[in-house]
Amino acid sequence: MRTVLESYIRTMTAAVLGLCTAVLISPSSVYAQLLTFSKQELTDYTAQSTFERLPDGRPKVPEDLLERARELSSEEVWAVLEEKGFHNQYADGFQILHPEKPMVGRAFTVQFMPERPDVKGVASAKAKERGLGPLTNQTAIDMLQPGDALIVDLFGKKVNGTIVGDNLFYYVMKATHSGGLVVDGSIRDLNGISEIAMPAYFKAVDPTPIGNVMLTGINIPVRIGGVTVMPGDLVVGDREGVYFVPPQLVKDVLDRADEIHIHDEWTKKKFDEMKYKSREIYSTPADPALQQEYKEYLKKRLEEIRKQRSPK
Amino acid sequence: MRTVLESYIRTMTAAVLGLCTAVLISPSSVYAQLLTFSKQELTDYTAQSTFERLPDGRPKVPEDLLERARELSSEEVWAVLEEKGFHNQYADGFQILHPEKPMVGRAFTVQFMPERPDVKGVASAKAKERGLGPLTNQTAIDMLQPGDALIVDLFGKKVNGTIVGDNLFYYVMKATHSGGLVVDGSIRDLNGISEIAMPAYFKAVDPTPIGNVMLTGINIPVRIGGVTVMPGDLVVGDREGVYFVPPQLVKDVLDRADEIHIHDEWTKKKFDEMKYKSREIYSTPADPALQQEYKEYLKKRLEEIRKQRSPK
Amino acid sequence: MRTVLESYIRTMTAAVLGLCTAVLISPSSVYAQLLTFSKQELTDYTAQSTFERLPDGRPKVPEDLLERARELSSEEVWAVLEEKGFHNQYADGFQILHPEKPMVGRAFTVQFMPERPDVKGVASAKAKERGLGPLTNQTAIDMLQPGDALIVDLFGKKVNGTIVGDNLFYYVMKATHSGGLVVDGSIRDLNGISEIAMPAYFKAVDPTPIGNVMLTGINIPVRIGGVTVMPGDLVVGDREGVYFVPPQLVKDVLDRADEIHIHDEWTKKKFDEMKYKSREIYSTPADPALQQEYKEYLKKRLEEIRKQRSPK
Amino acid sequence: MRTVLESYIRTMTAAVLGLCTAVLISPSSVYAQLLTFSKQELTDYTAQSTFERLPDGRPKVPEDLLERARELSSEEVWAVLEEKGFHNQYADGFQILHPEKPMVGRAFTVQFMPERPDVKGVASAKAKERGLGPLTNQTAIDMLQPGDALIVDLFGKKVNGTIVGDNLFYYVMKATHSGGLVVDGSIRDLNGISEIAMPAYFKAVDPTPIGNVMLTGINIPVRIGGVTVMPGDLVVGDREGVYFVPPQLVKDVLDRADEIHIHDEWTKKKFDEMKYKSREIYSTPADPALQQEYKEYLKKRLEEIRKQRSPK
Amino acid sequence: MRTVLESYIRTMTAAVLGLCTAVLISPSSVYAQLLTFSKQELTDYTAQSTFERLPDGRPKVPEDLLERARELSSEEVWAVLEEKGFHNQYADGFQILHPEKPMVGRAFTVQFMPERPDVKGVASAKAKERGLGPLTNQTAIDMLQPGDALIVDLFGKKVNGTIVGDNLFYYVMKATHSGGLVVDGSIRDLNGISEIAMPAYFKAVDPTPIGNVMLTGINIPVRIGGVTVMPGDLVVGDREGVYFVPPQLVKDVLDRADEIHIHDEWTKKKFDEMKYKSREIYSTPADPALQQEYKEYLKKRLEEIRKQRSPK
Amino acid sequence: MRTVLESYIRTMTAAVLGLCTAVLISPSSVYAQLLTFSKQELTDYTAQSTFERLPDGRPKVPEDLLERARELSSEEVWAVLEEKGFHNQYADGFQILHPEKPMVGRAFTVQFMPERPDVKGVASAKAKERGLGPLTNQTAIDMLQPGDALIVDLFGKKVNGTIVGDNLFYYVMKATHSGGLVVDGSIRDLNGISEIAMPAYFKAVDPTPIGNVMLTGINIPVRIGGVTVMPGDLVVGDREGVYFVPPQLVKDVLDRADEIHIHDEWTKKKFDEMKYKSREIYSTPADPALQQEYKEYLKKRLEEIRKQRSPK
Repeated sequence: MRTVLESYIRTMTAAVLGLCTAVLISPSSVYAQLLTFSKQELTDYTAQSTFERLPDGRPKVPEDLLERARELSSEEVWAVLEEKGFHNQYADGFQILHPEKPMVGRAFTVQFMPERPDVKGVASAKAKERGLGPLTNQTAIDMLQPGDALIVDLFGKKVNGTIVGDNLFYYVMKATHSGGLVVDGSIRDLNGISEIAMPAYFKAVDPTPIGNVMLTGINIPVRIGGVTVMPGDLVVGDREGVYFVPPQLVKDVLDRADEIHIHDEWTKKKFDEMKYKSREIYSTPADPALQQEYKEYLKKRLEEIRKQRSPK
Repeated sequence: MRTVLESYIRTMTAAVLGLCTAVLISPSSVYAQLLTFSKQELTDYTAQSTFERLPDGRPKVPEDLLERARELSSEEVWAVLEEKGFHNQYADGFQILHPEKPMVGRAFTVQFMPERPDVKGVASAKAKERGLGPLTNQTAIDMLQPGDALIVDLFGKKVNGTIVGDNLFYYVMKATHSGGLVVDGSIRDLNGISEIAMPAYFKAVDPTPIGNVMLTGINIPVRIGGVTVMPGDLVVGDREGVYFVPPQLVKDVLDRADEIHIHDEWTKKKFDEMKYKSREIYSTPADPALQQEYKEYLKKRLEEIRKQRSPK
Repeated sequence: MRTVLESYIRTMTAAVLGLCTAVLISPSSVYAQLLTFSKQELTDYTAQSTFERLPDGRPKVPEDLLERARELSSEEVWAVLEEKGFHNQYADGFQILHPEKPMVGRAFTVQFMPERPDVKGVASAKAKERGLGPLTNQTAIDMLQPGDALIVDLFGKKVNGTIVGDNLFYYVMKATHSGGLVVDGSIRDLNGISEIAMPAYFKAVDPTPIGNVMLTGINIPVRIGGVTVMPGDLVVGDREGVYFVPPQLVKDVLDRADEIHIHDEWTKKKFDEMKYKSREIYSTPADPALQQEYKEYLKKRLEEIRKQRSPK
Repeated sequence: MRTVLESYIRTMTAAVLGLCTAVLISPSSVYAQLLTFSKQELTDYTAQSTFERLPDGRPKVPEDLLERARELSSEEVWAVLEEKGFHNQYADGFQILHPEKPMVGRAFTVQFMPERPDVKGVASAKAKERGLGPLTNQTAIDMLQPGDALIVDLFGKKVNGTIVGDNLFYYVMKATHSGGLVVDGSIRDLNGISEIAMPAYFKAVDPTPIGNVMLTGINIPVRIGGVTVMPGDLVVGDREGVYFVPPQLVKDVLDRADEIHIHDEWTKKKFDEMKYKSREIYSTPADPALQQEYKEYLKKRLEEIRKQRSPK
Repeated sequence: MRTVLESYIRTMTAAVLGLCTAVLISPSSVYAQLLTFSKQELTDYTAQSTFERLPDGRPKVPEDLLERARELSSEEVWAVLEEKGFHNQYADGFQILHPEKPMVGRAFTVQFMPERPDVKGVASAKAKERGLGPLTNQTAIDMLQPGDALIVDLFGKKVNGTIVGDNLFYYVMKATHSGGLVVDGSIRDLNGISEIAMPAYFKAVDPTPIGNVMLTGINIPVRIGGVTVMPGDLVVGDREGVYFVPPQLVKDVLDRADEIHIHDEWTKKKFDEMKYKSREIYSTPADPALQQEYKEYLKKRLEEIRKQRSPK
Repeated sequence: MRTVLESYIRTMTAAVLGLCTAVLISPSSVYAQLLTFSKQELTDYTAQSTFERLPDGRPKVPEDLLERARELSSEEVWAVLEEKGFHNQYADGFQILHPEKPMVGRAFTVQFMPERPDVKGVASAKAKERGLGPLTNQTAIDMLQPGDALIVDLFGKKVNGTIVGDNLFYYVMKATHSGGLVVDGSIRDLNGISEIAMPAYFKAVDPTPIGNVMLTGINIPVRIGGVTVMPGDLVVGDREGVYFVPPQLVKDVLDRADEIHIHDEWTKKKFDEMKYKSREIYSTPADPALQQEYKEYLKKRLEEIRKQRSPK
């Protein structure tokens, strides 16, 4: 009988501890944020990713893929995502800092909502109970990891919707190793910020500091324009806008991009010969000889690229 | 030793069951929605309300206060909320159906986000596991209670952002006893809807059905314009826009409104006498005799109103 | 040999006359408009319509179908058009005169472009050569037939983009038997116009008369918002916007609308019983008994409708 | 020598008193407003008006002309003003209260500017020196006369840009005998206001009271949209927008309007006969017989109208 | 009698062949586009141009004038066009690629309209009948000549309104010798495009390819903003926007621009002397001595410019 | 008796002359502008400034403070102004020429209003009476002093709202020593202007010259966006927008800015050490040792700065 009892106790204890742990390790519960999205939920909802995970549960797109992603443009991402049925992963309409610099990072998401004293009061009390200070933009910023891109839903707020000024922008640059910033809201101190070499996408600039808002979620799903961004998405920004690539599609996107780069190279080379109408070459040559020529070119260049990439 | 053990077992069991119950009774867990806000959290964050609660945990502003709220206008709500430090409870910019009809209801909130096949797939699998169908607008609509106002965050989406057409609008009217609808998105079939006597506030009208979105939360905090709406807020709509009144402030708002109504009555009566400049009467008369006159009028009218309201 | 010669002459003569006729009977050539779309072209491009044609070549949606179309709403048209692959037939964003009045008519299209003295000069010379006056809005208006709806591309122009004031609006009402007006531009004299019982859809109102534009096409394909409108399209306007239905789809749209009307009737009847959740009834009942009930209801009502419509 | 001295004294005294008087009778100096426009300046700049003047110096368009102006529409005003070289007298883009009710009044102008504590402090000190209270919206409102229309430049401000709520709107209605309100800004308490029978044109509605602004001018020239409004202008509002008619043109506008009304009458009568294309009648008949017919009709109707108007 | 018959046959044959030729040589008939504008019509409507013509009928502004036009700015074009009564030749509101590079080219116009399956089906059938493929953006692009600027009406479409990506942009650059691109629509692949040295004016950027549209006209009159662009117009783009100059006015515009350049030179030189108020020099000096000085300067500089331009 | 009389005469004479002088030295009376703001009024309303004054009465922020102001950014100005209760001193939404160049100057204000022939006629007659020409943009421009920034209210007008083209822009640059331009309106000849090294903030660019407006005030209070600009305000423009600093606050703003610069320096230095979370350093370190470190750093750097600034 004892074993039964013991085993029962063990099971129950484990269950309770498991639940408690699950609760405790999720950033939401630690920081008393309004909307919760536990580490378990994050793991469940991003289960298609086969990459390692960051301690906070986000899929960790590997370094070498981040590196390759610096060559991506919006069109190349579009091709694969469209094919896979992801029609809502692109956001634009931003002012872009350093448009000539590609932005590549792992999505670290933050959500703000308009302030209500009653809700904020409860959140503060909950935080205090756990010996914590109130949630602020710096709470989130201080959790950033190298390679992260900070993705902020400030619901397009301009006045008092400034996620950072130049000091915190500098900190984000240091902490993420220039990962980047996307804010559906504003920044302040553009003069200072424009001297710091991290890509940033923002809706407006304003001299006021952030205010009249509550931080309601860290690393929860957030909406940026027409995109549902999941923590850990690969964030790719170019001169046009920002693509949020689900981790499980990153490899496909990058491989396709290699082919598109080579196709562009070849197409322009043929156009340089000045012998063809555009339709004879692009998007696919009708002439079988040209098709063959391209096929060989593609094969050769892909091999070169792979060789170049393989570690020496 | 037994008692210790037994008591331990009881405690653990209770803890586990408690946790499970907490999870099970919240609509979020039942319906496998992306963002969770448990019944416990809802209760915590609306703890200042002393009203009874609906089975789903929302504060239940009583019927008689709902009735009195039909006389409210935006300005009257503004006065009390501003004083109490609630600066972000008003949303406008809507097209209004039946602007001559006041809207009064208890907020039943629904949130949608742009569709992602990966997230939707996981949510569907989770729902299936629990023997449920996928979350749709009708899932939420079928949970509505008499007195509810349906508050929907569809992030301003027009095409495929239509929360209801005339059939479901008719159902909502029946289910809520004409409580009302506020959607940061669109509706379809305005011809049919305009014949149904329920107030509605929407951003646009479109012939397409709802699509390309996921229902991500029921009775969670949602953002409508610059307002964080909590489930159970008193929703008051007039010709201008919509106020979301925290339940704990409803009584104050209504009492103040009585005084404002009487003040307006008296002010207009004095203006009708054509003897005064506006500043001599409004907002407060400088003349002590007039002040006294008003004080007595106010007292008399308040008594009349209370008598009228008291159950016979 | 003679017969060969004679037959040759006959053929050539016929060819020349045919060409000349083709040219002469098209309104464009008669009126020296800038962009030409001959009667033959109109016939070719609307060849799928099996209806009779108006003298100017437009398909003539029959009177009884126009009559039935008065019951249509945007959603009902959407259903069939979407299914048939017509995704671009709806325009909205208009101010609507008499929104409670349905608009139904055959599209009579007119296009204006910004004035250029050189082009206008040539057009006037060409018109003069043929003994005609210059093209104006009245040239087009005077060609309107009963049952027409006047569809005008004035490229959203407000100032001097007023297709009619109250006098010509009155004339259009008389000439078309209240067919209607859709203008991507403006009208003038809203005070006078609002007393005239013809539906109208316009982008703006302005006190200036039309000016600084050239009439460049009558009954040519025109663009209204995101729609390519073909002369002879069935124009259906409701409280939301305007649908342009290709004539070959009119019958399908109307038949489907009958079913949708009946489906709405039945759905609301069932909701009135207050026994069902919305999903149990709408859009399709899961319960086979309810399905059967609906099937019978549909059959019965369709018969009633047909009987009612058949000429006595 | 005495006379010289005496005459000198008299002249000087008169000069000083004249200057002082000029200063004292102008509302600006009385009320310490920021921008001054003395009664003399007002008189100079509106010198073309031959009408009597109000005590504050504004031209007083006579009652009987105000009465006739109730029949005016924007198009009719446009015709004369355009001809006289006044291209900038029309403003639109307003929300209109009671669009079916014409607005007619004499412009009483008020200007606000964004608040600055330093400027406001000086203005208050100046006012106090003269034993006056600070300038507020009620200062201006309490100066309104029967027949006035209150014209307010609040630079399009919505939040805290509400010139009146329902109490003061009621007062304005009483004071001006329903003259009207035009505000490039907002109003509050639309519910209450919509029950008061005075025409009003406003850019927005908001629940906040007026604030964060300074009243900087009363009866000075103000800008409303693209119009420079002079105090005393005839204000005419219809379903489209508002015309500000310089007093010296009022008679011409009204006489021309009589002819346009008759022309419209006749044109529609001819269209009712269904014998003519629009161009045969409108805008001018080509047929001399029709021209004659119209000429006689015009003469007869003008006489009838004049007879009807002449005092019995 | 024979001669009569023969001459008849000859005449008829010539007539038929003439008509056929007319039809065949126009790009519209060759490509089965919806809206036709034959080579003859193009020639008629641009008859004021005395320049040679391109094989497709467009006036060919000569190379040396194109070269001189590289110095033009919008203001200089404005002066002559306004004077000649052309008030609608300027379009702006574009995003500009390489704003520091002037754009100069001969307008090659292309028009798209929203897709309709019925119309597209007929067009495809017609094309097939003539042994041609369907009309696409590449059909038009492959007709471009050196010196052309591609002018595209895509009715402001952003998503699927991308006339070219970087491959076809590269082709257009090669084919037109960097003539330029103006699209009332969008482009894709801005990253790639921004490295190609051809000026471009576009409304938006989007990652999607062109779609859901039909090419409806090549080298027909098109509308870009408030301008009616005729094929063969001189297109001049600077940092502000784009001017479309009718060929017959090009010489006047360029000669006037020479004078304006010299006037600017002289004016700034005088300002550099720091002796004058602006009104003493600009726009015309009042002092006869200065007038004389300027006259001589103008004469001298004009001669220098002419000398510099004359072929050695 | 004589002395009485004499003294009376003297007093009266002085009064009259004083009044006349007051009138004569104000630019408004000299130039017959519509809205007057005398030198006395200007002095009264800017009495808090203890700086010297320019001959036209404007406070003259000293050269050395102008110099220091070149380092200011919007955020730094915001801090002091907010604290002092000035919430409405910032305007943005401009296109910025040379955003990398700070703009610093003393506000010289100009106001335009829509043209009215009657008002313009009176103004011209008044000007003629005094032997002056009509008021134009050049009247104001020719009054500019070194160190001025030209601030123009053209009510957002684009077409014909161009305050200067390249010639007058060049003159303004020369006259103000590159002080700067802010126009709520447009400029023309951006190509020419972009080569001139003076900062400028404008709403639009257009090829038309200024027209259809009247200059109604020089150095009167004007509204730019949400700011009441007083003549003599310190104008500070950066990459974000423009601050108008009341002269009496300039010293405080600059001193605070020194501290903010040092605080930024120190903060970034600490972040560079990579040992701290952002909250440990920013905005204020919690650790007393760090606080002390900062205090000493601040003191040292302030001394260095002062030494550097003190004249050798």
